[in-house]
Order: sequence, then C-alpha cells, then structure tokens
Amino acid sequence: MSRLYVINPNSSQKVTDGIAAALTPLHGLGVEIACRTLPEGPPGIESQAQADETIPHMLRLAATLEADAAAFVIACFGDPGLHALRDRTAKPVLGIQESAVMTALTLGHRFGVIAILPASIPRHLRAFGAMGVRDRLAGDRALGLAVADLANEAATLARMTEVGATLRDTDGADVLILGCAGMARFRDPLERALGLPVVDPCQAAAAMAIGRIALTQSHSVGVEHAG
Amino acid sequence: MSRLYVINPNSSQKVTDGIAAALTPLHGLGVEIACRTLPEGPPGIESQAQADETIPHMLRLAATLEADAAAFVIACFGDPGLHALRDRTAKPVLGIQESAVMTALTLGHRFGVIAILPASIPRHLRAFGAMGVRDRLAGDRALGLAVADLANEAATLARMTEVGATLRDTDGADVLILGCAGMARFRDPLERALGLPVVDPCQAAAAMAIGRIALTQSHSVGVEHAG
Amino acid sequence: MSRLYVINPNSSQKVTDGIAAALTPLHGLGVEIACRTLPEGPPGIESQAQADETIPHMLRLAATLEADAAAFVIACFGDPGLHALRDRTAKPVLGIQESAVMTALTLGHRFGVIAILPASIPRHLRAFGAMGVRDRLAGDRALGLAVADLANEAATLARMTEVGATLRDTDGADVLILGCAGMARFRDPLERALGLPVVDPCQAAAAMAIGRIALTQSHSVGVEHAG
Amino acid sequence: MSRLYVINPNSSQKVTDGIAAALTPLHGLGVEIACRTLPEGPPGIESQAQADETIPHMLRLAATLEADAAAFVIACFGDPGLHALRDRTAKPVLGIQESAVMTALTLGHRFGVIAILPASIPRHLRAFGAMGVRDRLAGDRALGLAVADLANEAATLARMTEVGATLRDTDGADVLILGCAGMARFRDPLERALGLPVVDPCQAAAAMAIGRIALTQSHSVGVEHAG
Amino acid sequence: MSRLYVINPNSSQKVTDGIAAALTPLHGLGVEIACRTLPEGPPGIESQAQADETIPHMLRLAATLEADAAAFVIACFGDPGLHALRDRTAKPVLGIQESAVMTALTLGHRFGVIAILPASIPRHLRAFGAMGVRDRLAGDRALGLAVADLANEAATLARMTEVGATLRDTDGADVLILGCAGMARFRDPLERALGLPVVDPCQAAAAMAIGRIALTQSHSVGVEHAG
Amino acid sequence: MSRLYVINPNSSQKVTDGIAAALTPLHGLGVEIACRTLPEGPPGIESQAQADETIPHMLRLAATLEADAAAFVIACFGDPGLHALRDRTAKPVLGIQESAVMTALTLGHRFGVIAILPASIPRHLRAFGAMGVRDRLAGDRALGLAVADLANEAATLARMTEVGATLRDTDGADVLILGCAGMARFRDPLERALGLPVVDPCQAAAAMAIGRIALTQSHSVGVEHAG
Repeated sequence: MSRLYVINPNSSQKVTDGIAAALTPLHGLGVEIACRTLPEGPPGIESQAQADETIPHMLRLAATLEADAAAFVIACFGDPGLHALRDRTAKPVLGIQESAVMTALTLGHRFGVIAILPASIPRHLRAFGAMGVRDRLAGDRALGLAVADLANEAATLARMTEVGATLRDTDGADVLILGCAGMARFRDPLERALGLPVVDPCQAAAAMAIGRIALTQSHSVGVEHAG
Repeated sequence: MSRLYVINPNSSQKVTDGIAAALTPLHGLGVEIACRTLPEGPPGIESQAQADETIPHMLRLAATLEADAAAFVIACFGDPGLHALRDRTAKPVLGIQESAVMTALTLGHRFGVIAILPASIPRHLRAFGAMGVRDRLAGDRALGLAVADLANEAATLARMTEVGATLRDTDGADVLILGCAGMARFRDPLERALGLPVVDPCQAAAAMAIGRIALTQSHSVGVEHAG
Repeated sequence: MSRLYVINPNSSQKVTDGIAAALTPLHGLGVEIACRTLPEGPPGIESQAQADETIPHMLRLAATLEADAAAFVIACFGDPGLHALRDRTAKPVLGIQESAVMTALTLGHRFGVIAILPASIPRHLRAFGAMGVRDRLAGDRALGLAVADLANEAATLARMTEVGATLRDTDGADVLILGCAGMARFRDPLERALGLPVVDPCQAAAAMAIGRIALTQSHSVGVEHAG
Repeated sequence: MSRLYVINPNSSQKVTDGIAAALTPLHGLGVEIACRTLPEGPPGIESQAQADETIPHMLRLAATLEADAAAFVIACFGDPGLHALRDRTAKPVLGIQESAVMTALTLGHRFGVIAILPASIPRHLRAFGAMGVRDRLAGDRALGLAVADLANEAATLARMTEVGATLRDTDGADVLILGCAGMARFRDPLERALGLPVVDPCQAAAAMAIGRIALTQSHSVGVEHAG
Repeated sequence: MSRLYVINPNSSQKVTDGIAAALTPLHGLGVEIACRTLPEGPPGIESQAQADETIPHMLRLAATLEADAAAFVIACFGDPGLHALRDRTAKPVLGIQESAVMTALTLGHRFGVIAILPASIPRHLRAFGAMGVRDRLAGDRALGLAVADLANEAATLARMTEVGATLRDTDGADVLILGCAGMARFRDPLERALGLPVVDPCQAAAAMAIGRIALTQSHSVGVEHAG
Repeated sequence: MSRLYVINPNSSQKVTDGIAAALTPLHGLGVEIACRTLPEGPPGIESQAQADETIPHMLRLAATLEADAAAFVIACFGDPGLHALRDRTAKPVLGIQESAVMTALTLGHRFGVIAILPASIPRHLRAFGAMGVRDRLAGDRALGLAVADLANEAATLARMTEVGATLRDTDGADVLILGCAGMARFRDPLERALGLPVVDPCQAAAAMAIGRIALTQSHSVGVEHAG
C-alpha cells in the first residue's frame, strides 16, 4: 500500500493531530496517510522568516522518508519549501496552499481566504501572484484573534463566520479557503452557516496527492526533478 | 460504492472506450467509474456551435443519472455545459479542461496545450481567460492533422511529439496538457520523449472528482446549487 | 436596405418590444432593424443552464433568417451562443454583453454592471475574464429584486439608482452598464440621477452592428467563418 | 444633419485625404463626416514627443469646431490628446487606436498590430496596458520600411502581408489592426491575402462615433465632462 | 559635480520650493539638485488637458538645460511628457509617479495612493495600467478638499490621515504614495499616524536619478534615445 | 558614515569580489558599502532548494551586522530570504532581483532576463508573478553554459550577446537584466553590442538602498517590521 507523507512543518503535535483527523475521510482511497511533525519547527508559523527557517529541516526530514514515500504534502499554508522539495525528490509534492487554491477554483469563481494573522496576508498575496490567480481572489481577511481566543472553539468559529460573511457579502467570494492547517473541524459548521463551499487546504492537498499517486505509479520518467 | 459518471458528449463509443481505459489506474480508489456516451452528440466536437448543441442533451442525460451519481465529469476539452450542469445538480461536477489546468498548475509553471484543431484555440483561450490563468499559459498549438492521419497512431504520436517539443522549446512550457479526451494512451510515450509531465484531462478530472466525493459525502448543504 | 436581426433568446415578447423601442434612435442609420423573439426560450434567462439551452434554438432561428440578414445581434446579457453563431455564419454577429463592455471602455475607465440577479454575477465574471478586461471592471452588483418588484417601474429605478450609486461611490465606477436586455428605458433617468454615462447593451450592440454592416458590405472574404 | 469632425493631427493633407476616402462607406449613416488637417502638426508623427506636441494645437482646433460638432475623432494611432479633449468637451470623443482595439476584440480573440516604425511599439504597449487589454494582444510588429519604400504601394502591401502573416502564424493573431491612419486602402487586399479580418482604425472610430451620436443626441447630462 | 534638474511643470514657485525642501536629505549624495519652475504651466495641474499642454513648454525648457544636465526629473504626479523627454534626450529621465510606484513596490505589497482630486484617479489608473502594476494597487482615493482647505495645513493633514487610514483598513494598502508633488512635509506625520511607509514621489524620483547618474556616467551608448 | 551591507549568500569570495567591484561607481554617494560572503552558502546557488537553505544562515549573519547596518542588500538573483529579513529588521532591505526589475521598468517597456541556468527560469517567473509585473516581461532565457565555459570570459560574453539579441529581436525586450550577481563586468560590452540598456542587479539594489538610507535616516517609525 502506497504511503503519503503529510509533513506539518511546525512543532505542534496538536496541529498534526488535527491534520490527521481532517484526512480520515480519505482513508478508503487505497493510500496510507502518515502525518509527521517537524520537531525543529516553531510552535506556530507566523512570519515569512519562521516559514523559511523550517525549510532545511523539512528537507532533511523528507529525505529520511523518501524511500517509502509515494508522495509528500507540506502542510503549512504558505507552502514553505514546496519548490525546494520538488527540487530534491522525483516523488509528487503538493502544498496545501496551492492545492486549496486549485480546488477552490473548481468550486466557485472568486475565492476568499480566512487568514489567522493580518501579517500573513502579504505572504498569501505574493503566493497568489506567483500562481497567477490574482484575478480570482475575492479577498483575504484575517481573524485577528489573540492566541488565547483561538483556544476558544466557539469564539473562533464565531469570528470565522463573521470574517467569512464579510468575504462573501463585501468581497463577493463564492468559495472560501481556510488559510491555515489544522482548522478542518470548522469546515462543516462554516459551510452550514455561510451557505458557501469551504476548502480545508490539507484535505485538498491530500486528495490531489492520492490521485497523483494513482496516476503516476506506472510512470518513472522523473520529469519533475528539474530545479 | 459511490459511482462517478463520466459523460462523453460526443457520440463516439470509441472515444468513450478510450476514456474508460484511461481511468483504469483510478479503479482502486473506492469509486465506481461509469462512462457514458451521448448518443445525440456529434461524432466529434470541432466547433463552439457543436459543443453548445450538446448541452441540452447532456443535461437531460445527467438528470437521468442523477439519482445514483456521486459526481459527474464532462469529458470534452472545452467543458461544454460545465456551469450549466452545476446549476442543475448539487453533486460535484468537474470539467476535464478546468481540472487539467488546475492539475497542470501544480506540476510546472507554464502549461502548454496540444490541441487537435487550430479552430479550437480561441475557444481554449476564452476558457483560460475565464479561469483567470492566462499568465500561466505557455502556448496552445494544434496538431493540424487530417482525420485520416489521426487514425494512424504512429503518425499522431510523432506529430504530438513535434508539437510538444515546440511548446517546450519555443514557448517555454514545463508541463503539457492533452487538449482532447481520449488521447491518454499517448501520455506515457510523450512524457518519455519530451521529459515533461503530461496531463491527460480525463484522468485529472476523474482524480479530482474522486477526492471530492470522499470529502463531500458527509456534507449536504447543497451550496453549489446556485446558478 | 440592409436588415439587422436582433434575436431575443427568451420568449417574452414584452422584452423584445422593449429592445425594439430602445433601438429607435438608430433608425436613421440606413439599416432596417428587425427584432425577433425566440419562442422556445424561457420567459426569462436566469441561469447558465437556461442560457445554454437556448443556443440550439437560436442557431436554428438564425439559419432561417440568414438569407436576408446583414448582421445579427444576440440580445441577452451573457451572450449565449455568440461564438456558436459566429461559427455558423459569415455575417457579423455581435453580442450585447461584449458590445456593451467595448463601448463602456471608451466612456470611462472602470465600468460597473447593474445585474438583475446575484446568481448572474459569476457568469458575468467568467465572460469578462474571457474578454480579458477584468482590470477595467469596477464592480458587478445585483438588484436582488423579486419578480413582482421588477414590474414596479418606480421601485426598480429607485433600486437601480441605489446600486449604481454604490458602484460609483464604493467601487469607483465611472461608467455603468445595464446588465440585462430590455432596460433601456432606465438609461436616461439613471444618467441624470448618477451623473455617469450609462450603456444600454442592446443599443451598444446594434450601433456596432450597423457600423460593421457599412464597413463589411464590400468585403466577401468570409474570414470570420472559422470555428 | 449632425457633423462628425475627424482631426488628423499631422499636417499631411494626403493622409487626411486617405482618411476621408476610407470613411466613404459610412456616408449613408445620417452623419456628415468632416476631416480636418492640423496645420501645426508634423508631416508625420513618429515619436511620443511629436505626438504630445500636437495636443495643444489639436485642442485649439477642436475648440473652434465645437459649436457645430456632434462628435470628434482623433485620427492618429496613439490617440494623442484623447483624454485631454474629453476633458474639454462634453461631445463624444473617439480615438482611432482605442476604437480599433475595441472593434478588433469583437472580431477575433487575439489582435495583431501592424506598426509602421519599431519605435512606436512601446508607445502602443503602454496604451494597451492603460486599456487593460494586454492579454488579448497577440503581437505588435513594425514594417520597418524607409519613407521612400512607403511611397511604393506594391512594396508596402508586400511587406504588410509579410508582417501580417507573421502576426498570424507566429504570434497567433486572428484579427489584425492597421497601426496607422491613412492605410485603409490596404485593408481589402490584406484581408484577401491573409484570410483574417483587418481593422482600419479610422473606420472603426468613425463607425463608433456615428453610433454614439445617434444614441446620445437626446441626452444632455454632459456626464463625460469630468477631467 | 553633476547636476540633476527637477522640473516642476506648473507655474507655482511655492510648489517648486516645497519640492526643493523635500530633496534636502539627498544633498550629500554628490549631485547638485536644481529645481526649476515652468513659467508657462498652469498654477496647478488638475486635468489631463492641462498636463498635456505643459509638455511642449517642458520639452523646450529641458532643451535649454540639456548641456549641463546629468539627468532630469519631471515633478508632476501623472508624469506629463515623461516618454516625450526620453525621446529627446539621452540623459536619464525619471518621472515622479513612475518612480514612486517602483519604490513603493519594494516597501509593501499593495500600494495606496492619496490623490488630491477625484478627477485625477482615472488618469492614475491609466498610468498604472500602462506600467503593468494594477495587481499591486490597493486603492486610489482623493482628498476632495477645496483649494482653500488645502491651504490649511492641519486640515489637510487630518484629511490625509483619514484617507490613508481608509486605504490601509478598507483597501488593504501596506504602503502609501503621496499622489502629488510638494506634499513631502506630510510624509513624516503620516507615517507616524498610520504606521505605514509613505513615499514622497519627488524624493523617490530624485533618489533613483542620483543612483542612475552614478551608474551611467561611464556609459555613453545613448541607448535610451529611441522613441 | 552609514554602512550598507551587501550579503552574497553563496560562499564564493570571487563572486563577492565581483559584486564589490561592480559597486565602485557608487562610492561617492556618502555610504560605505561593505560586501560579505556567506560561508555556509553553497559555492553557487542553482536551485530553489539551495536558495532556501541559505536563508537561516543569512538571517543569522544579518543579525550580527544589524547594529551598524544602515541597510541590507541580499545579493542573489532570486532574492532568497528577502521578506524573511524584512521580518527581522526595521532597516531597509533590498533584493537584487526586485530592485533590478523596478529599475528596468524605468528604462524600457519590456524587460528581458539573461539567466545562467534553464532551471532558474520557473523560479524567476514565480518571483515576477509575485511582483505583479508579468505583463512587462519580454522573456527570460538561459545561457545554458557549462561551468567550464562560464570561466571563459570571451565565450560567456559571446553567449550573453547571443541570448540578449534573441531577447531583443524575438521577444521584443528593450531593456535587459543580468539574471545573476557578479556579472556586472559584462554590462558595458553588452550595452555596446546590443544597443539596449542593461541592468546589473547588484548595482540597481545598492543604488536604491543608498537613496533609501538618505530618505529614511530621519524616520524612526519602524513601519517595515511587520511580518
């Protein structure tokens, strides 16, 4: 059975557990999903500097997993090291930000992003620009909650719903993306509250990775190992 | 077991058979894939007029399949009726053109399209514009073969390789899309000949649909039924 | 005398009458304007599915008119079958959505669209993306009125003025487009109320068609009959 | 009878005569077309500096014509003073470059421009960027002929055909624009030689102006007199 | 010592004095900065027509300064005659609008512009479109103050702060540009009040010009003298 | 005297020496320029993985230099860690890629990039997309030379000239960027050979940094320290 490695580049096992839980609906698709925490990562990635600093560690972890990996998912919105890992392995590598966007573009015309921190938004915008999809972005808005508030599930959902409603009503979003790993538990209640499809980025990336594994296993040209 | 309906909107059973064969690598993913031919369609879709004329028939066929469909794929490059069917059903609907593009964007930076007919290219460009991904398009080039030549597998592959090499070397494509349903058998030899990843659009759409089914089966908000 | 056929692809004679009335200022330009209702169309086109379903009927009607047509206008915002009819005839074919946008781009820098239904907006955005003019769009906002309210002229104008003011003041539009056929009677009062030029799409398309007829009558290369 | 003033901002009466001849197919549309030469202009406009230097003179000429003008066309590709004249008059003002582009966008998906001089191309590109239509541009290529060669009709047509073929075959243009006033006599032979629609910019602008006159004569809000 | 000419194309010596004061921080960089007023310019440039009318006068003034100029800056937001002067001299020519944008793009992801007059905004948008940077624009908002109010420093700063806060909070700007020459004295207090970097366009252009002078003095190819 | 630190993130002292030599024309501008080599960097940066792996080391080096730094330049085309260092310091940080592009946009309308390796091009394209300047890119072409050939100055210049001529003649570039640090010695001969302005990215960034230092030294709001 093929194994998909999902690497959480922060050091929070709780986040990794949340990612693993989010991926249970994908368990019947013939691929083992193995989630890994990056011990050298920060407890949470809040800046470009922190994101970039995880990359060498993530690359080393991926190298140790390479032998029995069918594919990799980098499970941090911002996709730190996505193209670096594509440089280092011929296996499929999906990023949760990129996959979430590509998935959202098939679910609505303008996607809105619910970010955790305001400081993440320019980082997201650079990524959407690099992807060439800025015309499809309705808006990117941050929860702006303190850490203590994020621990409060009800308060977080209430604020997410408020931000999602602004993305829908003010910015014109018709599909939303959760701009962070480990928030999949909010997907269902948000869809119900807002009447819009909501994309969990880890689910989107793992689903794309599973399809990729099925379609690339008979291929061995290593065409992605370019640089 | 969930059933994914893949509708070939032309009337060629041979094309449908080719699509079905292309999707065998996806058989182990817990979803039954059922391919259907549209008897009212033309033998092949060569113009926007022909594409548009299939839509009412396709919508009627989809309505008859709705009850036991977990999702639909419209299997014509050009995605005729994609948004129309999304209007009519709450089930996930994927188009092979849209899905191929979203998949290609995770495999390379600039995608090249191998079209069959020169007249299809403006149709493709309108679609890529509507998707908002024109900045990622390297080029779209047609085989320009007569029907008789398309029946010749070796000649077709040779011409595809030539066009693919031009997309790679002149236009800068680093990933290619087969711009037609039913050409998946050329994917492997093209990848080997050109050293680039090649996306078969039916495979891309079916893989995305399978992931979508897994991730939406516990959701019932019907949020996609908008119009 | 040349004859321009303006085809209303819905079945409402009242809408056709409104279109015909809107085109009276163009009667002195040497072209007979003949408006036709599509009996097989729905009473009003509210979804992509309905729009697409009119196309085969519209193509058949146009074929019966072909012999004495100097040009065609498809008079539904959304331009259903525009490229399909261009496939089928060498005569000039103008769509009211496309023509309204091209006209608006010469009247202001950022155009705003007054749509009838919220569900039409993604359809418009796909069209503006296909046209490659998204950077010129200020906003697209819907009246969101019930059918009963649309029958109330004063209430409709009041709501149009409100939406137009939002497009002007919040979105920065300096030219407005009526996003529906048959609303030309609101053009004058809206211009007066808002101080912005307002484009009626049927007028824009018919005016372009009349110019096209004059300029193409000595040409017979049939260069538009491509596909 | 309404009068449309077409102002040639260079001082060449021969160019003005060519423009007037190009507009004869529009004589039956109920508008008198009066072409004027700008005596203070250069014999031909070859640089941005020359274009800009015509503007104050053109504004003064237009002011003297204002009283009996129904609309203005500025007949130099590059549209010098287009927005300046829109500042100064409430009458419709069309530029031949802008009108040619808007017309071409209804005739094909990617327009190619046949420029006279290589040095004009950055000027064109700035204009297309300002119009927001760069995604629709296939290419802009210059004849690169010496003045002496331009006087040779056969040599000019041969070179135009060559450049047009490159725009069609290498750049993918499916509609061409003559990037200069006074070349309308080449439109027919180019269409025949290349099998593509060819837009003469003066014809495009005058046709749009005539429609504008018909549609604005009952309007008096002066909404275009903004700045 | 090299001399940089900064030309204020309006006739207000007070504005020129404000520009000169704004450039004092650049005095230690080895270049003499000489500011000149254009006597033929209007007291202030408020429309495209006024901007265009300054160009021939500006070109003549620049020609008289050419002999001992190391570079030129055109100090009007809108960059009237920027490309015209580049046609006429081989010396570096910088525009304050263009330079402000290029500088802002290195200070934040989305720039906001504080315009004086609402009527300037379409002019700015055309320029940003010509520059190809529309995706980086957060918003462009006008003070909308009467001339009398602009003379009131405190009222002007208060309104600027208000507009800047809207650009930051509603439009998402993370860097601001003063959309007018001669407002540099507001830069410091605005940065303090808003917590965002603020670009004075004259400072941006002069700084770029000084670097250009240092880097081009050993070059003499005159490559910019194209047209 | 202010000190500008220019950090070469590869470990080649020879490259650092080349950068330092390139910056001598900027010595008279009142800022001390101190070039530093990153000992932990690879001998040359050839992939995204190598670029990303330098970032933590670069951030540590910058932290040790912070106390007496007036500004930083990251001297690797690709700008590794540009936004990360902006997260970590309130001092101005310029990247040579970003600065080269912003400089080139004031020297011509379409920039061409001379890359060293073909594998760098997708990396560049992602960056240009993130910058939002893809419409201004004429082309990005690689020398494709082996390391041994790069040591041969004459062969390198010959190949650069050939690539630059293709960017100019085939892609339409009117300004070129050297897509690598340490190639400034080729700037002069390339400008002479090609008749186009050529931007050395290290010179462009250092010049912008010097202007920034002069303009920010009286400011202390630390507004760039966001994340």
